[in-house]
Amino acid sequence: MERLRCVIQYDGTHYAGYQIQPNGNTVQAELEKALRKMHKGQRVKVVASGRTDSGVHAKGQVIHFDTDLTIPLSNWRRALSSLLPADIMVESVESVPSDFHARYDTTGKEYRYFVWNAKEPDIFKRLYRHHVRGELDIEAMREACSYIEGEHDFTSFCSPKTDIKGDKVRTIYRAEISEDGQEITFVFRGSGFLYNMVRILVGTLLEVGRGDRSPREVPSIIEAVDREAAGRTAPPHGLFLWKVHYEERGE
Amino acid sequence: MERLRCVIQYDGTHYAGYQIQPNGNTVQAELEKALRKMHKGQRVKVVASGRTDSGVHAKGQVIHFDTDLTIPLSNWRRALSSLLPADIMVESVESVPSDFHARYDTTGKEYRYFVWNAKEPDIFKRLYRHHVRGELDIEAMREACSYIEGEHDFTSFCSPKTDIKGDKVRTIYRAEISEDGQEITFVFRGSGFLYNMVRILVGTLLEVGRGDRSPREVPSIIEAVDREAAGRTAPPHGLFLWKVHYEERGE
Repeated sequence: MERLRCVIQYDGTHYAGYQIQPNGNTVQAELEKALRKMHKGQRVKVVASGRTDSGVHAKGQVIHFDTDLTIPLSNWRRALSSLLPADIMVESVESVPSDFHARYDTTGKEYRYFVWNAKEPDIFKRLYRHHVRGELDIEAMREACSYIEGEHDFTSFCSPKTDIKGDKVRTIYRAEISEDGQEITFVFRGSGFLYNMVRILVGTLLEVGRGDRSPREVPSIIEAVDREAAGRTAPPHGLFLWKVHYEERGE
Repeated sequence: MERLRCVIQYDGTHYAGYQIQPNGNTVQAELEKALRKMHKGQRVKVVASGRTDSGVHAKGQVIHFDTDLTIPLSNWRRALSSLLPADIMVESVESVPSDFHARYDTTGKEYRYFVWNAKEPDIFKRLYRHHVRGELDIEAMREACSYIEGEHDFTSFCSPKTDIKGDKVRTIYRAEISEDGQEITFVFRGSGFLYNMVRILVGTLLEVGRGDRSPREVPSIIEAVDREAAGRTAPPHGLFLWKVHYEERGE
């Protein structure tokens, strides 16, 4: 048996999220269906770095699985890709030690959230950018970001539907905003993220950007430890799981 | 009765083309459905500058229709847009003389065809860009474009499925190629276009770009007056009806 780690991309538009569920098509189900074909009907369990919600995209999701096939590593990517639908792509496949675990071994993640900030929608961006019509105060949102960075209990930015039982303390290493014409990109890099955390952060930042909240409210929102204190959850289609980080292994 | 002219955009991905047909959803059917709602169940016939095929997009399709509603012109755009699906957008609405005709009055059109020229596909561009893996010789394609410009009988670049009965002489004012990183844009501006003409032109240009044909073959392809002489039809999803031209009316 060999353990393989893959970086995959997917367009979440037509999926009921990453994780297999009884109703609705999922990315995991597509991956396992493709692997089952390659393994002559045998089920191959796929483990991802974490789930993504319905409509959320991934540029750098990481998965692992075990295989007894003797395909040369250089052929794996094309072999697996050819069995997947056009909205899921395998970017790389590498052999990893048998104790590597895509979920437990992550040291952090990067999410990006894309906003199309224009009076009119752009229908050709509608699946990948959240359209915000009104003007946004970028500097106010940047100030708000500075309060998000650091180690905090992020309960206020976690959906009550979470199944996390442990504490909700996470470290955000970086919360940044960049502008390119009418496109605004939010970048969050952190040790870990709670359920809907990036979408609630963005929803709250957008309320700051619109002037409905002061950036200085953010520390008290965090201190409230109450989901009701934060802003609305931004829609899923602007969100991309951008990169999953792992510790470099020494020899 | 008042005649209105609208510029509309649509994402052709989920449509069986622009024009109403017995089977399959169409852009025209969506427009007429929305107008029927606004007109209390009365059918409003929509006339477009021309059809687009299944999967082809539009940034600047032009339509006209007649209405007896007394909505102020400035409210029309939002009223109609609100009844349309998210993949069709009304960009502008203006009042025109009652003898304006969206199809008969066109003086020319511009189409753009977008190629994503990279070793790997980009799944987030897959609906709007034709992925071409191999390297393309841009200069050779530009030379080929120079032979396309001008007045020619474009029978070789017309699908035999056409229902055009008249001659197939058209004038291409401009056939240009621009490059931006891995994106290649083909721009065609002409007096009129035959069925599948842009897609056959692009398919032929791509064969030149790959080195399968010499740019100097283009004049003989045109002279052959035979669809078999030209290259393959490029897929629909890279194609956009970009702009429709009309004569400026004097007072």
